[in-house]
Amino acid sequence: MSITWTTTQKQRLMELGAVQELATRTFGDAADRDQSFQRIESELVGANKQALMAHKGQGSRPVLNELGDKLIDCLRRQGFSQVNTPIIIAKSTLERMTITDDSPLAEQVFWVDHNKCLRPMLAPNLYSVMKDLYRQWGDPVRIFEIGSCFRKESQGKYHLNEFTMLNLVEMGVADGQQENRLRALISMVMKAVGMTNYKVEKNSSEVYGETIDVVCGDLELSSGAYGPHSLDNLWGVFTPWVGLGIGVERLAMALEGHRNIKRVGRSLSYWNGFRLNI
Amino acid sequence: MSITWTTTQKQRLMELGAVQELATRTFGDAADRDQSFQRIESELVGANKQALMAHKGQGSRPVLNELGDKLIDCLRRQGFSQVNTPIIIAKSTLERMTITDDSPLAEQVFWVDHNKCLRPMLAPNLYSVMKDLYRQWGDPVRIFEIGSCFRKESQGKYHLNEFTMLNLVEMGVADGQQENRLRALISMVMKAVGMTNYKVEKNSSEVYGETIDVVCGDLELSSGAYGPHSLDNLWGVFTPWVGLGIGVERLAMALEGHRNIKRVGRSLSYWNGFRLNI
Repeated sequence: MSITWTTTQKQRLMELGAVQELATRTFGDAADRDQSFQRIESELVGANKQALMAHKGQGSRPVLNELGDKLIDCLRRQGFSQVNTPIIIAKSTLERMTITDDSPLAEQVFWVDHNKCLRPMLAPNLYSVMKDLYRQWGDPVRIFEIGSCFRKESQGKYHLNEFTMLNLVEMGVADGQQENRLRALISMVMKAVGMTNYKVEKNSSEVYGETIDVVCGDLELSSGAYGPHSLDNLWGVFTPWVGLGIGVERLAMALEGHRNIKRVGRSLSYWNGFRLNI
Repeated sequence: MSITWTTTQKQRLMELGAVQELATRTFGDAADRDQSFQRIESELVGANKQALMAHKGQGSRPVLNELGDKLIDCLRRQGFSQVNTPIIIAKSTLERMTITDDSPLAEQVFWVDHNKCLRPMLAPNLYSVMKDLYRQWGDPVRIFEIGSCFRKESQGKYHLNEFTMLNLVEMGVADGQQENRLRALISMVMKAVGMTNYKVEKNSSEVYGETIDVVCGDLELSSGAYGPHSLDNLWGVFTPWVGLGIGVERLAMALEGHRNIKRVGRSLSYWNGFRLNI
């Protein structure tokens, strides 16, 4: 009979970034296992410390921020201007995204008071800004925001309560060309960050209808939508558009080969992939 | 007898970025005033549109983000590493900053549930990270974070409910040299952003005791604190440190010569100083 790690041992090894083969190893008996655990834990702690020491005094910037920089540079070169919109948004704004009290997403919303919440997505604010800029700029309007969004998640290996979204929108794409334009934008941003291991899929979304999504294995990295769309009227938008949302922590996780998204997100336990409190 | 703008007229002119002389102009009678208002409003709307049009398709980055880039670059060159910590923090964390239910600051805190809130400052998270990094790095620990903080403010011309803080901390400064080090860091960051019109003042703070502050006129741009400090024990910190917090919107406001901080902050009404919904 062979045994594997205890739950506590396995959790500890995962926290320390053990690879899959290690986390699923089997042993003849408990003594053998526990001895292996102590040795491996000590090695992983040492490796973590050594990797962290290499950053001492180096003025390092986390992968999450470096990825953000690459995405921002790429989009600016294509004429997309950056915007900064409020993190606390009105409940009525969510309702205009058809997210009402009985929507599945509503349960994930962090409420700040009875009619204000933390934005679970950037789309409603971008609808507002793109409409106003269109009135002044006309075609094309190309903008993006990168910033924190918030959802009460089950906190699995792919989810964070606080995550970083980059969302671009473009008005002025020819009607009928939306899907092509989205595919071109996807290629452009994935190339900008050096991501090659991905597939583009069509899916259906509660809010957006058909979406053009980017997946890496079973991890959704990005989701694209377009209009004319049934929501547009509510926002005063009457022109074809495309929009693409990118989960920046997920992209960082995929590029770094991490198996837990916590390593790259906002955290007091990890810094830039390394464990802090070991 | 001379009259001035109606409250509504004055507010509108301020929104459109009218200079002080315009906002305080006087008139012989209401007809004269209202005619002037229409002409000036039209000019300001035209100027706003023209300035906004110059950004169409340019891939522009708001002053707020550009300032952030300059501060980040300057700090990284000095060996400060960037960190990204949670925006939603535990109530117990605030208590460890001596912010309890009866503190003046407590009334400004946005609560997400009974024991979680939006961070009103970066300091508690940085205390936690600097302690952990010190255990692994030893002297010196040089880190910074730049990100959103939240306070329920009266929303005057210098305050925002959501604002961007840059906070640096350094452990490993010689005891007795904290004030000198803070003054050197202040010179360094102000030079990096091209800010020359400022004074350094000593003040006393509810939380930190003595602070070394940077002011521009009556606007506080930055506040520095240092340890050993009475809070340090609670955080497991036993080494001299200095910390400097910079209000990035306030710095942007001072550098751009704006008279209302809303123009540079997160907003659906302004983009990069320009009015969106006129």
